[in-house]
Amino acid sequence: MSVDTRQASALLTDDELRTLDAHWRAANYLSVGQIYLMANPLLTEPLRPEHVKPRLLGHWGTSPGLNLVYTHLNRVIRARDLNALCIWGPGHGGPAVVAGSWLEGSYTETYPDVTRDAAGMARLFKQFSFPGGVPSHVAPETPGSLHEGGELGYSLSHAYGAAYDNPGLLVACVIGDGEAETGPLAASWHSNKFLDPVHDGAVLPILHLNGYKIANPTVLARLPEPELDALLKGYGHDPIHVTGDDPDAVHRAMAQAMDTALDRIAAVQRAAREEGAGERPRWPVIVLRTPKGWTGPAEVDGLPVEGTWRAHQVPLAAVRDNPDHLRQLEAWLRSYRPEELFDEHGAPRADVLACVPDGARRLGSNPHANGGLLLRELPLPALERYAVPVDKPGATLHEPTRVLGDLLEGVMRATTDRRDFRLVGPDETASNRLQAVYAASGKAWQAQVLQVDEHLDRHGRVLEILSEHTCQGWLEGYLLTGRHGLFSCYEAFVHIVDSMVNQHIKWLRVTRRLPWRAPIASLNYLLTSHVWRQDHNGFSHQDPGFVDHILNKSPEAVRVYLPPDANTLLSVADHALRSRDYVNVIVAGKQPCFDWLSMDQARAHCARGAGIWDWAGTERGGGPDVVLACAGDVPTQEVLAAAGLLRRQLPELSVRVVNVVDIARLLPSEEHPHGMTDFEYDGLFTPDKPVIFAYHGYPWLIHRLAYRRTGHKNLHVRGYKEIGTTTTPFDMVVRNDMDRYRLVMDVIDRVPGLAVRAAAVRQRMEDARLRHHDWIRVHGTDLPEVADWAWDG
Amino acid sequence: MSVDTRQASALLTDDELRTLDAHWRAANYLSVGQIYLMANPLLTEPLRPEHVKPRLLGHWGTSPGLNLVYTHLNRVIRARDLNALCIWGPGHGGPAVVAGSWLEGSYTETYPDVTRDAAGMARLFKQFSFPGGVPSHVAPETPGSLHEGGELGYSLSHAYGAAYDNPGLLVACVIGDGEAETGPLAASWHSNKFLDPVHDGAVLPILHLNGYKIANPTVLARLPEPELDALLKGYGHDPIHVTGDDPDAVHRAMAQAMDTALDRIAAVQRAAREEGAGERPRWPVIVLRTPKGWTGPAEVDGLPVEGTWRAHQVPLAAVRDNPDHLRQLEAWLRSYRPEELFDEHGAPRADVLACVPDGARRLGSNPHANGGLLLRELPLPALERYAVPVDKPGATLHEPTRVLGDLLEGVMRATTDRRDFRLVGPDETASNRLQAVYAASGKAWQAQVLQVDEHLDRHGRVLEILSEHTCQGWLEGYLLTGRHGLFSCYEAFVHIVDSMVNQHIKWLRVTRRLPWRAPIASLNYLLTSHVWRQDHNGFSHQDPGFVDHILNKSPEAVRVYLPPDANTLLSVADHALRSRDYVNVIVAGKQPCFDWLSMDQARAHCARGAGIWDWAGTERGGGPDVVLACAGDVPTQEVLAAAGLLRRQLPELSVRVVNVVDIARLLPSEEHPHGMTDFEYDGLFTPDKPVIFAYHGYPWLIHRLAYRRTGHKNLHVRGYKEIGTTTTPFDMVVRNDMDRYRLVMDVIDRVPGLAVRAAAVRQRMEDARLRHHDWIRVHGTDLPEVADWAWDG
Repeated sequence: MSVDTRQASALLTDDELRTLDAHWRAANYLSVGQIYLMANPLLTEPLRPEHVKPRLLGHWGTSPGLNLVYTHLNRVIRARDLNALCIWGPGHGGPAVVAGSWLEGSYTETYPDVTRDAAGMARLFKQFSFPGGVPSHVAPETPGSLHEGGELGYSLSHAYGAAYDNPGLLVACVIGDGEAETGPLAASWHSNKFLDPVHDGAVLPILHLNGYKIANPTVLARLPEPELDALLKGYGHDPIHVTGDDPDAVHRAMAQAMDTALDRIAAVQRAAREEGAGERPRWPVIVLRTPKGWTGPAEVDGLPVEGTWRAHQVPLAAVRDNPDHLRQLEAWLRSYRPEELFDEHGAPRADVLACVPDGARRLGSNPHANGGLLLRELPLPALERYAVPVDKPGATLHEPTRVLGDLLEGVMRATTDRRDFRLVGPDETASNRLQAVYAASGKAWQAQVLQVDEHLDRHGRVLEILSEHTCQGWLEGYLLTGRHGLFSCYEAFVHIVDSMVNQHIKWLRVTRRLPWRAPIASLNYLLTSHVWRQDHNGFSHQDPGFVDHILNKSPEAVRVYLPPDANTLLSVADHALRSRDYVNVIVAGKQPCFDWLSMDQARAHCARGAGIWDWAGTERGGGPDVVLACAGDVPTQEVLAAAGLLRRQLPELSVRVVNVVDIARLLPSEEHPHGMTDFEYDGLFTPDKPVIFAYHGYPWLIHRLAYRRTGHKNLHVRGYKEIGTTTTPFDMVVRNDMDRYRLVMDVIDRVPGLAVRAAAVRQRMEDARLRHHDWIRVHGTDLPEVADWAWDG
Repeated sequence: MSVDTRQASALLTDDELRTLDAHWRAANYLSVGQIYLMANPLLTEPLRPEHVKPRLLGHWGTSPGLNLVYTHLNRVIRARDLNALCIWGPGHGGPAVVAGSWLEGSYTETYPDVTRDAAGMARLFKQFSFPGGVPSHVAPETPGSLHEGGELGYSLSHAYGAAYDNPGLLVACVIGDGEAETGPLAASWHSNKFLDPVHDGAVLPILHLNGYKIANPTVLARLPEPELDALLKGYGHDPIHVTGDDPDAVHRAMAQAMDTALDRIAAVQRAAREEGAGERPRWPVIVLRTPKGWTGPAEVDGLPVEGTWRAHQVPLAAVRDNPDHLRQLEAWLRSYRPEELFDEHGAPRADVLACVPDGARRLGSNPHANGGLLLRELPLPALERYAVPVDKPGATLHEPTRVLGDLLEGVMRATTDRRDFRLVGPDETASNRLQAVYAASGKAWQAQVLQVDEHLDRHGRVLEILSEHTCQGWLEGYLLTGRHGLFSCYEAFVHIVDSMVNQHIKWLRVTRRLPWRAPIASLNYLLTSHVWRQDHNGFSHQDPGFVDHILNKSPEAVRVYLPPDANTLLSVADHALRSRDYVNVIVAGKQPCFDWLSMDQARAHCARGAGIWDWAGTERGGGPDVVLACAGDVPTQEVLAAAGLLRRQLPELSVRVVNVVDIARLLPSEEHPHGMTDFEYDGLFTPDKPVIFAYHGYPWLIHRLAYRRTGHKNLHVRGYKEIGTTTTPFDMVVRNDMDRYRLVMDVIDRVPGLAVRAAAVRQRMEDARLRHHDWIRVHGTDLPEVADWAWDG
């Protein structure tokens, strides 16, 4: 439907219209003030160059539209006593949302020095885009926000994540027409096929077409309206249009559109919740088409600005030097009639505040946008129920992720009523062997179901869509609103969300410094189907570099674990699911893997993060001749196989085996909270003995972590060298020189004096590698001695 | 429109139908054979367990649909003498496309040992998913492909990239309904707003709805048809449906759909090219709805398989051990009636080949899919036309990317008629100061144009859409078909395509080992708006880690350059644009930057990749006391400022300044083709003197590159430590301890014996940093002594 702005609806009384417009004008005034002013905030005297900031930074273009949404959300929240959030997608929308929260008082409650008076207004203006001040985007610092507006594409998936399992919540989501061109945003429209109208809240997308990006028209704004409507209907939405540039008409149309949308949402929820309707509903979407930089300067220096890309940033750029620009700025500010909006002390007048809701209903004070306030401890079952029995190391095999699946089933079951845990993944839950969870909760699905389908469930809490972006966005929104979850992903393809996780880590880093932000549950990744076991997928599926990416980010917020077997995976997962404000990356295999540690041993080992496996080495007091270190399941197996070879073939050699679960332990303690002191490091790895380190990923990462250590020059790392193909597990380690035979050769080459003494052993290792090459060429399988290998320590 | 498969059209004669079906059955037979067989390829004897591979790897589900498309593309290519490519999007489509190219002879021409007879067929079967053999995805090894099917999401943007500036080319593109859920694919539908019907070829998307991913139904397959149609119309397409599971009926419907689509495309092109039509056309899309694993086992072990997710991989998994499975497999294979399809020598019979086109028209032999064959040298103008004059270092300022923009304008102009160069970017060409190019070519745009718009051009070759994914996909498709281009991007947000560039580098690495693949132009990135100059964007826009990501990949294919000024940027860009088969990453600033080197000096410096800047240091024979090294524009400025401070305040100190442009020079020569020998490295950096290295990005990257060097223990690196905010340029370097004052302090702390002698200087540096903190808090700007600084050497 289209709300015709020329035929103003009778919905609003003139008085309501007047107060809504007052709120909107006040927000616009405050937005312009933030971009330009550092003094004279109320224009109590004529504007002079020295009132204007020396560096004009900020983005006016999107602000008036966001302000309009803020004003009208206020109205409906108050009128309907709604529990509502808004996700502000458009880039650089900071001034608008800050203005809205300052007007309603949330800002001052959060930052008491920014008072709701002239002095506070001056502070509000100055801090914006000031060094170390308030960013130009909606950001962690912005009350009421759980979404950073700096990188575009994630608003709608965040909105759905916030709405899942929050049946009483309305999540409005403003999507800019720039953001709408991104892939992640385009994919996330289909999230409505996963939103349960019974147990989830509602998402109200507001597509704001102001027509331009930084420098170009937007694609969606230049579609004929029927084509745009077709697109939105194809996304499963019923569009409601609000178009115009006359403020009064747009206010009336927007009020009517909001009421229509909310009535429809209420009807959908009533039908599903009270009448048991099972059809996937068509949810409303509001298409708001207003000029970019609306109410700003129509022309500057003879060129059109309002309604064009030129309004994107600072429409009047030379205010301090150009008297015309200064005059235009003053006229622009005064066009909002500030004297009607603020009293002589600078406080908003009653008309301005007439639409503002109370207390926690205010958009800047809703606790869902500061989800840590609502977070409850996750009811994690005792690990002993899931642990695999280990009497001696390496005697049995389990698929670690399958064992984890049982634990996740327990978590899913324990949260059946609370509904505050979700498992997300791009169509890989079963492929990653976590399918046990389906016994406790099916897969969310609101679209058509056929008889042959399995585990689809209108009320399920397992989320699967073939879009890593959407999975990540959903989970972020879910965690940021105070719930728990885990994302399981093929290791190589988690790079798809490199940039998203960057932004989430940055969010966490900033919120950790904001005392009013309560800690949230960590974002937990299970990376499996990893580089060493891509037997049929080959080179395109081989990339262990996400760990490198993560370890570039703020150490206070990132944790990386490489559990070598099933029980260590349980221990690490338990720790990750209990933690707060981290991104935890857990890399673990799904293929059968030897069980090395009992549950008690696993707990102790994971608590240390790295430790000596006495039972695997041959130390007899006096320290080792060589250290064999490993991190990751496949490297651990190869290191233990090498240790076994050394024990038999060079029994006089003193070998120490060290396993590293928590990779940041290798960093100096000054660089990462989990880092070891040099004393600890030398105690494990020795300051002077050769260390042959088999690592799951790119070998140079270990050097980057350990380069400051005394013994670094003796550190020799094997790992994935980007040599990949479709092949067997053992052939992969041979091709990358991380196989047991190569590791034994490395030991012989690096232990002083061993080369001559062990020349025959070394030759046998070379021979074994050649035997492998000959065998695989013919049989396509691994050597029987490798395929049947088991630890015999 | 919907082609009703119950009312078979009269388009095909019965004879045509029979031969098309023969081709399709042959391709299906070959697909199954690749997954299962290692002997008895023609079933000349009853199937026995030992004929079956020991490891069953592969994906049957998507193959019959892809085979159908191959068959019907053959028909229309032959009937219409089309110059056509096909992009095969669905994952694991390898067996189908290999089958098609073997049938037509392309495979044997490419790999002569895989002959078109029984022996070759046996080889074809065995190599599939065999260690070191042929991947399960469409891959670089697949004749006729320019798209790797391993990671999903990029087929349609690749197709558009291939079609741009290829007016005679038809690019069919099969999109799986799994892939269609990804963000990059969802965004790329709007590529049709950028496709010029006059100068570009046509893209024919074929959306293949087989209903399931690995384990779940797909979203698009479960939309009611009117909703799906609305979506496709909203994307700007007219859908043509082909639905069915009866082969004859589907053949007839598919033939009719293909003809309808191609007639429409021809009409669109005629209208645009001959009648000058200016309306954006509605291009056809074919929606092909056939069962997953069509013609495979309907049921296995009592569970439905054909038409369900269970057909995704290997429908019969226990063929060697389970006689029932073996019987089912044999029946399945014989259902294609191989004796009708292949003669007694195993060659395809005439009926099978009746639809196959000739020579370079064959999909497996079209040179556009091996674009290097068509590549021409880019006509690069002489750099001297664009070089900035530099009489002495640091006397003038230029914006490097603006200078590069002039060169790109020259390239754009020189290719006006050839149309084989494109500049792509996410709405940032002007923001990155490259807008000079618009003088030679506008921005491609087929949607509505308003009077106020600038530089939009139906025939433009600058591509701007706010989707890094789409930009990347377009450029990859363009390069892979033998053309040239450059992608300019904000540095932080290029992480959005981390995973895409991974796949492109993997593609290059494999094709470099395939003698039949001709080298293609490199993929060139200009990363600007970088970490140090995000004055108004702040923390969310600060991430220099793409370089780290790239340097994890195959050294033979990756190059990273950090030119410190305008002329070095010109030299590096010139080199990158002439190169082949690389990914070149160029990091350069857009803000005014001192000019350090003349064009001749810049060429010489860039050719070396790293060198001593004599004029900046104070060496007087006898070697330096300390080396100040830098890489990147901002680090170079801070190092030179530090060198200036040292020259004045500690004139007796012998300082060497080294600038690094080509960061891989730091690697050992064994690790990277550009790496330095230890002799070269020690010559530049000394084996034993302190090296204070100011680096553009994360400091530990330099350690990871240089850890093997003799002098590594003396290497002290400053760089971005993930401490970001909205602030001034100098405050950013102070916060990250890379400022000139800190660098001088580092020198004093690390040159033996200097600490006591230079205590007063060190104190002055401390004082300057404090002065900075006080000043910026009040003024919001940088200290005048910093803002006005210039080199005075």
